[in-house]
Amino acid sequence: MSDRTAVKAFLKSQVIETPSWGYGNSGTRFKVFAQAGVPRDPYEKLDDAAQVHAATGVAPVVSLHIPWDRVDDYGSLVRHAKERGVRLGAINANVFQDDAYKLGSVTHPDPAVRRQATDHLLQCVDVMDVTGSHDLKLWFADGTNYPGQDDIVARQDRLAEALSEVYGRLGDDQRILLEYKLFEPAFYTTDVPDWGTSYAHCLELGEKAQVVVDTGHHAPGTNIEFIVAFLLRQGKLGGFDFNSRFYADDDLMAGAADPFQLFRILHQVAVNGGFSPSTGVAFLLDQCHNIEAKIPAVIRSVMNVQEATAKALLVDSEALGAAQRSGDVLGANAVLMDAYNTDVRPLLAEVRQEQGIDPDPLAAYRASGWAERIVAERVGGEQAGWGA
Amino acid sequence: MSDRTAVKAFLKSQVIETPSWGYGNSGTRFKVFAQAGVPRDPYEKLDDAAQVHAATGVAPVVSLHIPWDRVDDYGSLVRHAKERGVRLGAINANVFQDDAYKLGSVTHPDPAVRRQATDHLLQCVDVMDVTGSHDLKLWFADGTNYPGQDDIVARQDRLAEALSEVYGRLGDDQRILLEYKLFEPAFYTTDVPDWGTSYAHCLELGEKAQVVVDTGHHAPGTNIEFIVAFLLRQGKLGGFDFNSRFYADDDLMAGAADPFQLFRILHQVAVNGGFSPSTGVAFLLDQCHNIEAKIPAVIRSVMNVQEATAKALLVDSEALGAAQRSGDVLGANAVLMDAYNTDVRPLLAEVRQEQGIDPDPLAAYRASGWAERIVAERVGGEQAGWGA
Amino acid sequence: MSDRTAVKAFLKSQVIETPSWGYGNSGTRFKVFAQAGVPRDPYEKLDDAAQVHAATGVAPVVSLHIPWDRVDDYGSLVRHAKERGVRLGAINANVFQDDAYKLGSVTHPDPAVRRQATDHLLQCVDVMDVTGSHDLKLWFADGTNYPGQDDIVARQDRLAEALSEVYGRLGDDQRILLEYKLFEPAFYTTDVPDWGTSYAHCLELGEKAQVVVDTGHHAPGTNIEFIVAFLLRQGKLGGFDFNSRFYADDDLMAGAADPFQLFRILHQVAVNGGFSPSTGVAFLLDQCHNIEAKIPAVIRSVMNVQEATAKALLVDSEALGAAQRSGDVLGANAVLMDAYNTDVRPLLAEVRQEQGIDPDPLAAYRASGWAERIVAERVGGEQAGWGA
Amino acid sequence: MSDRTAVKAFLKSQVIETPSWGYGNSGTRFKVFAQAGVPRDPYEKLDDAAQVHAATGVAPVVSLHIPWDRVDDYGSLVRHAKERGVRLGAINANVFQDDAYKLGSVTHPDPAVRRQATDHLLQCVDVMDVTGSHDLKLWFADGTNYPGQDDIVARQDRLAEALSEVYGRLGDDQRILLEYKLFEPAFYTTDVPDWGTSYAHCLELGEKAQVVVDTGHHAPGTNIEFIVAFLLRQGKLGGFDFNSRFYADDDLMAGAADPFQLFRILHQVAVNGGFSPSTGVAFLLDQCHNIEAKIPAVIRSVMNVQEATAKALLVDSEALGAAQRSGDVLGANAVLMDAYNTDVRPLLAEVRQEQGIDPDPLAAYRASGWAERIVAERVGGEQAGWGA
Repeated sequence: MSDRTAVKAFLKSQVIETPSWGYGNSGTRFKVFAQAGVPRDPYEKLDDAAQVHAATGVAPVVSLHIPWDRVDDYGSLVRHAKERGVRLGAINANVFQDDAYKLGSVTHPDPAVRRQATDHLLQCVDVMDVTGSHDLKLWFADGTNYPGQDDIVARQDRLAEALSEVYGRLGDDQRILLEYKLFEPAFYTTDVPDWGTSYAHCLELGEKAQVVVDTGHHAPGTNIEFIVAFLLRQGKLGGFDFNSRFYADDDLMAGAADPFQLFRILHQVAVNGGFSPSTGVAFLLDQCHNIEAKIPAVIRSVMNVQEATAKALLVDSEALGAAQRSGDVLGANAVLMDAYNTDVRPLLAEVRQEQGIDPDPLAAYRASGWAERIVAERVGGEQAGWGA
Repeated sequence: MSDRTAVKAFLKSQVIETPSWGYGNSGTRFKVFAQAGVPRDPYEKLDDAAQVHAATGVAPVVSLHIPWDRVDDYGSLVRHAKERGVRLGAINANVFQDDAYKLGSVTHPDPAVRRQATDHLLQCVDVMDVTGSHDLKLWFADGTNYPGQDDIVARQDRLAEALSEVYGRLGDDQRILLEYKLFEPAFYTTDVPDWGTSYAHCLELGEKAQVVVDTGHHAPGTNIEFIVAFLLRQGKLGGFDFNSRFYADDDLMAGAADPFQLFRILHQVAVNGGFSPSTGVAFLLDQCHNIEAKIPAVIRSVMNVQEATAKALLVDSEALGAAQRSGDVLGANAVLMDAYNTDVRPLLAEVRQEQGIDPDPLAAYRASGWAERIVAERVGGEQAGWGA
Repeated sequence: MSDRTAVKAFLKSQVIETPSWGYGNSGTRFKVFAQAGVPRDPYEKLDDAAQVHAATGVAPVVSLHIPWDRVDDYGSLVRHAKERGVRLGAINANVFQDDAYKLGSVTHPDPAVRRQATDHLLQCVDVMDVTGSHDLKLWFADGTNYPGQDDIVARQDRLAEALSEVYGRLGDDQRILLEYKLFEPAFYTTDVPDWGTSYAHCLELGEKAQVVVDTGHHAPGTNIEFIVAFLLRQGKLGGFDFNSRFYADDDLMAGAADPFQLFRILHQVAVNGGFSPSTGVAFLLDQCHNIEAKIPAVIRSVMNVQEATAKALLVDSEALGAAQRSGDVLGANAVLMDAYNTDVRPLLAEVRQEQGIDPDPLAAYRASGWAERIVAERVGGEQAGWGA
Repeated sequence: MSDRTAVKAFLKSQVIETPSWGYGNSGTRFKVFAQAGVPRDPYEKLDDAAQVHAATGVAPVVSLHIPWDRVDDYGSLVRHAKERGVRLGAINANVFQDDAYKLGSVTHPDPAVRRQATDHLLQCVDVMDVTGSHDLKLWFADGTNYPGQDDIVARQDRLAEALSEVYGRLGDDQRILLEYKLFEPAFYTTDVPDWGTSYAHCLELGEKAQVVVDTGHHAPGTNIEFIVAFLLRQGKLGGFDFNSRFYADDDLMAGAADPFQLFRILHQVAVNGGFSPSTGVAFLLDQCHNIEAKIPAVIRSVMNVQEATAKALLVDSEALGAAQRSGDVLGANAVLMDAYNTDVRPLLAEVRQEQGIDPDPLAAYRASGWAERIVAERVGGEQAGWGA
């Protein structure tokens, strides 16, 4: 898709989903540094997300995390979002912060804990029914810390049982996105540690279960774009959790640590049809802004995904294919690098102007006065954070 | 299986397959250091393998590598093995050393190269028909070195096509063991980089295709025993290529770099029924003895696998299960560690004596005079090595 | 030192220092699971540490963490320790949990923050003067999360300046132990990321500055025993923070993840004189017991270090040296493995009986009733944890 | 240095040294794929290097590898280079391909082997005297494969002794560049595994010993630009061996695997004065072109280093410093990224035109007919390669 007009058209229609928890406080096990103006409830998170959408034009959807975003009346949350010009997206289940989950949730040796966890997942589907969310995103912190601690295969059986029950509860228009992660918080085994495990479970569940790729959840040296291409080939790529990393699951801004990798990933999405809405690939951010200002960090991340997308779309696929088929290693690589080395910021500025927004989203946000306003107004109450 | 008699009975019946190429010269890209007395043809490799079996009593099977072990008359090789008290095992196809394979074998962009590679695989099945081998072990060096070099998904399609053709050629008693490897010799993408890719292909091929786990072929931090347990649960673990590593695919002696990992792997085999012959899990060595004497290194590796197996069988599975089910983290770990910390060498000495062999295999080998004999006799001709 | 009597004598005299914070609650960024009976102040932590010493006989010293263990009267803490049969050891400075330290402590761009941090370090030396501690253990969480965030070299200059000021404040019998860590909580640069950086600073500071090796703070594939040997050769190994890991800084029980590595490390200590008190190498634990019972976990860790030490001391150094000098790769490796494969638990049981304690420390602890007592008695108040 | 004219002036004066062995055949342990037209002797390698310089204008220096580039008359090699418009650069000693070096070279347990290795190093200085080379680049493959194989500290002593002897032989204008490498070909210990070890030895040797950073020789997750900055601060950065990698020491084209990392490294060079000739930092390529055409691959690599240099020089250092000092995390990062995201290819085209060469070096090379000529002319004789 190297036609400039078509590229611009796609860039205007792109949807990047931002995470409610990215607007709240976060940190490491060593310290959570609180920031002034941080939201105190899900409504204020939506207000912040709406600023990101206003600035970028491509972030109209917000993922929720239950119970972090639990409210009495989800209908009112839906209406609040609509008033702010955004809508609710994936529901992220959280079965890792209750005291019961010390040794696992759906894989816990105790059936009572598994029941509690599975019930929570089912309640998340209830929430989806109200919010109109299509995606139940499941990440399990489940695992063990010490060799011998629990039976690896028994835990898989328990996992399969819970997934199957939840799968049966899904509506026609709903699906499970099953995330995997190499380690943390579990340090010996993790029950869904890699894409293969997630894929195998999704395959057994059926069409409405797909794999979600969090770009920070792999072993060092893993070729993520290979996984993306493979899952697209199998029809099992449900979506992305974008963020970036130098070491482990650092959860830095998408595109900040390895912009070339982000480009390569989106190139695979492009050449394998993943940008077509019919494939249903979801493009979500999942990040922590521990030390930087949160809203500008989300804006920057959205821009990074946009720029990498633009470069991916600018690849001259005919020239690339010809070089590949003829075994021209350097030629094929050069076609790819030509797109990567292009400065697409002018193109995106144009796109934004055609969308009727400021060509410089960060400047627009700064000019809006929102940052000062939330610091002044959000006084009292408890700031939202990973534990709240 | 913590009954001592049963443990000893199993240890006597264990079969560890040794690789013909482990007896030849090997090295790194920097240098192959030749050793005196190294075999000059497949017959001499079998002679050496027979020494390992004589010393250990549990290594009666030898894997071949085609074309490294190509002979005019495989029937004569079968007879030679029989005369030496061993038999031929897995056939390892090699589609990475012909000049045609610079950009791949079965995944090469050029259909003529793919034809050449697939034909070689089919010829390997012909060899199996003669040798009575059940396992066609496939490792593909295929991959790319530079982003954009080739189309990831197209290469998967080509791979699937070749595998399917070979699968169709298998006899009733034959299977494909599909190996995966993170990297090397390809440095950007590898076409079968991880167990998930191998698993997905095996699943599509059918019952006679299974995954083989080479313990040196993973990303840093990968929990290999998890993969082993998962594949056993899915009925898709075909076997092992044992070796050990500190960094990448170092191909050191099994159990040398991380004996605790080897124990944990074999513990998963034990608790998930993988030692039962009915599961068909093959236990092969795949190593390079670049600087150490080759036959003693293979003997040592066989002993390391034996010791780890013995420890795995000594785990008190009832106590372990009880601790696991009750959530006793330290207790469960302690049960496992109790077996690991046991010195099983006296038990294995007993086993060997009951088998009628020397309790100290390395001393027995030294006393045999074989090492001196091959140095004296194997003069002239060309030593076997990775490239020959 | 393969003489059994000498080995036993050393094992009786070994001193393993336990960390006060190991008795408190800890967790990951996702959740801290509180445990019943956890100490509520530094006095109770010492009470727990005394139980570990009572059970093992080799853990008479307790590291403190300031400000986690801040008390009004350190003299009373010294007396409390003495009454319980233990004494205070290294003082661990903490300059990462004040809100001011979001962008660093001694390397912060703002001189006022650096002043605050350095003052804290100086106060830690004041504490040492009272407690009689010889070691000021410095770990800096300082670093950056994003490329460009700060000037790498300017941060080194600031670090050197602070270290120099603190070094000047040390008494004759006091030293700085400078720790390094690859990453976390900083995710792009860490100001003391590796032993080389720590070594270079210690060299510039002088004789009273030495490197401390935390076994969980390295990049994947790092050969820790090489570093230990090298630092001993240079006279710059100050001590260890023992713990174990499968992935990153997992802080699991020492010896739990890779017992062979712990043995190899202690083998280097043994052959390079590091067990001699004159070298001043400190043997500390630094672990988190997130899901397992804390006191038994510390006991188990102490036992693991003891067992690895015993094996290291049992290496037949004459045979090893002879094999090494003659280039006998397999022979030298076999000498080392012979010691490692020995079950030293009977030897340690003997050692303990000769020390007048129970040969089974965990059973002794269980029988003591302490676990039940603290659960019953430590009610009300706030449990100690990483943030308290 | 964000003044466009100054940037261009520097880019014209930049010197990137190319390696003679990059023009010869290379491969992995699995296979060396020969390419048509590859040089058959050092003279032909210089001919190829001259083509790279002709096309790029910034590659006038060629590193040699002894004994791969051994000739009877180094004077004639010097003259040949001069006639071709290039000159000889660093001399790379090779003490890893003689059969004697199986267990090490300067660290070998046998003093006779150490003597042989040290003599080779001294001979390399003899060569330097003739060629006028200033840099003796030392990379030692020395290490061990198995725990216990040799004494780590004794090997350091032997290394120090050899280095000291060679250091004493250096002329006034000569220096040692001591390289480090994590692993390969040694798989357990490497005698100079990391920058800290190299730094410590260089420090003890004196001013004429400096560390060389090969960008492919680190553990996963290592922050290379931190090391570069640190060594520049200490006055101990001797130079670079550029190449790129996804996994281990892949030796791909510089800038191919992680162009952002190359930029970050060169940014540290820029801000810490490393581009000033007075610091003596050498910019060398050290790569293997296993599957791609060699001369174009070297040209591409030179261009990649140029582009990363241009971007590094375009960083607005005043804005960067201001943002850093004020703790503006996102602002500082944005200044850096602004330079990185700039398309500098037009600037470099301008630079080349002002140098009087073709703005498109690869097109110029293709148009030169050299590729066809060497295929036609270099027939007969033995192609140069790693082992020749």
